[in-house]
Amino acid sequence: MNDYLDEITWNDQGLVPAIAQDQGSGQILMMAWMNREALKKTIELKQGVYWSRSRQKLWHKGESSGHVQHVKEITIDCDADTVLLQVDQVGGIACHTGRAHCFFRRLTGKGWQNTESVLKDPSEIYGKQP
Amino acid sequence: MNDYLDEITWNDQGLVPAIAQDQGSGQILMMAWMNREALKKTIELKQGVYWSRSRQKLWHKGESSGHVQHVKEITIDCDADTVLLQVDQVGGIACHTGRAHCFFRRLTGKGWQNTESVLKDPSEIYGKQP
Repeated sequence: MNDYLDEITWNDQGLVPAIAQDQGSGQILMMAWMNREALKKTIELKQGVYWSRSRQKLWHKGESSGHVQHVKEITIDCDADTVLLQVDQVGGIACHTGRAHCFFRRLTGKGWQNTESVLKDPSEIYGKQP
Repeated sequence: MNDYLDEITWNDQGLVPAIAQDQGSGQILMMAWMNREALKKTIELKQGVYWSRSRQKLWHKGESSGHVQHVKEITIDCDADTVLLQVDQVGGIACHTGRAHCFFRRLTGKGWQNTESVLKDPSEIYGKQP
């Protein structure tokens, strides 16, 4: 019973944009992409699983960092071409830069300015490369 | 001084996904796309202007319905490939279906179920076609 996957408007690469929103605060944590397999896994695991376009593989968010996303609700929009996840973000860090969320660059008269501080050094989150 | 546009990671079609979030409630209203011109116009007008992929033209949201979006803040994410707008949605209706927002189809055991009622009939918003 994968009918719910057939209702999604996948793009010509078989992907759909997926927004992760913190269920408690409403903060938008990140925007990533899913293919059918990623959305299916997300539903099965009740954790955010995406498709990494750069690595061309499934990306179970938090797999290495421990910062998984517990998915509480999944919605799609009117034309079924965007997925929205309501999540609880373990560790309070969604961004690979070590910030709480990814949308930390705000447009000001001086261009894009950082608005959020790094909560944890990425090398601490992911470990130093060997 | 368009340097801020050069910092965006435009996709191979020259577009970037743009999320509109209600500044007051935190509700995600819609996800659409912008090209350089749309983002520039959005900044100039302080209102949401998108690129309509179906009509292949600039789309000043609310132009015909009056339901414009007053843009209060613009942020980009860590890799600068998604734009997030904090907006005040005039009329409280962001979706072309006449609903407050576009993400009204929630995944349940019975598939995608509508969760939001129509606030205004689309024919009232856009007028009947001649």
